[in-house]
Amino acid sequence: MSFYDASVPAFLQILGSLSGILTKAEAHCAAKNIQPDVLLGARLYPDMLPLSRQVQLACDYAAKGCARLTHSEVPSTPDTEKTFDELKQRLANTTDYLKAFKPAQFDGADSREVTFPVGPGNTMTLTGQQFLNRFAFPNFYFHAATTHGILRHNGVEIGKRDFLGVN
Amino acid sequence: MSFYDASVPAFLQILGSLSGILTKAEAHCAAKNIQPDVLLGARLYPDMLPLSRQVQLACDYAAKGCARLTHSEVPSTPDTEKTFDELKQRLANTTDYLKAFKPAQFDGADSREVTFPVGPGNTMTLTGQQFLNRFAFPNFYFHAATTHGILRHNGVEIGKRDFLGVN
Repeated sequence: MSFYDASVPAFLQILGSLSGILTKAEAHCAAKNIQPDVLLGARLYPDMLPLSRQVQLACDYAAKGCARLTHSEVPSTPDTEKTFDELKQRLANTTDYLKAFKPAQFDGADSREVTFPVGPGNTMTLTGQQFLNRFAFPNFYFHAATTHGILRHNGVEIGKRDFLGVN
Repeated sequence: MSFYDASVPAFLQILGSLSGILTKAEAHCAAKNIQPDVLLGARLYPDMLPLSRQVQLACDYAAKGCARLTHSEVPSTPDTEKTFDELKQRLANTTDYLKAFKPAQFDGADSREVTFPVGPGNTMTLTGQQFLNRFAFPNFYFHAATTHGILRHNGVEIGKRDFLGVN
């Protein structure tokens, strides 16, 4: 197996599942007469980030993660999404961006060094494999699972199978 | 890099961070005069699993995941933990179990087939790399991030840096 197989499909699976989860969340709003803005702004605690930002960050960790691993230009996407449809478009755009990578771009990327920003004015350098496992994956899954947790906490009828993308 | 590097360290990082998060949760209980049982039984929604079960499942997906990848005997651990100390011991035992694997046991495991149970009476067969990315990692990170979400929702002063294990 290649390092491409170790990274891109993992991101794609969850980006797809998040889109399905947002579809269910939007239907929940319609069925329960909930303003979509309320759910999009929901948080698990007042100083945590709201649902919309969790989705945007999951997209960023996937897209920027793959860009850094392949030493491609790191994309910068303004966080302007204000509706479920716009967030699903962001997920679709991120999916398209990831699908455009060629497996060969990841050849040797596991042992190649990646230097990336960590906090204001600081950078860290890790091998690609370390970057993926210590930074890109845990951040990506954190925001994806928090998206699920916020919606679950608000009564949207989803489960772990939706998170895994097997529903 | 080896397939061992792609799997074991990723699990170890988060198992360690969960132990740190539980230490902060226990201190929060003491400081706020909260019965530990209340927090250990906390859920994000009534039909979700409580905190203690989220930690146990994170341990299981790490331990059983590595066992299946290496075609080792799959460990079965009774879910008897009832205190923060016992859950931290479960995390420590899982960490020790993972550390006992030798990198050579993972050589070729990325392309070797893994057959594993999915629901009652069903199994699925994937390559090791697919099993790790489609099943073991997303399940593991899901329960780890949900552990974080439950505690965050209940006011424990932790953040993403605690989840990443860099605090």
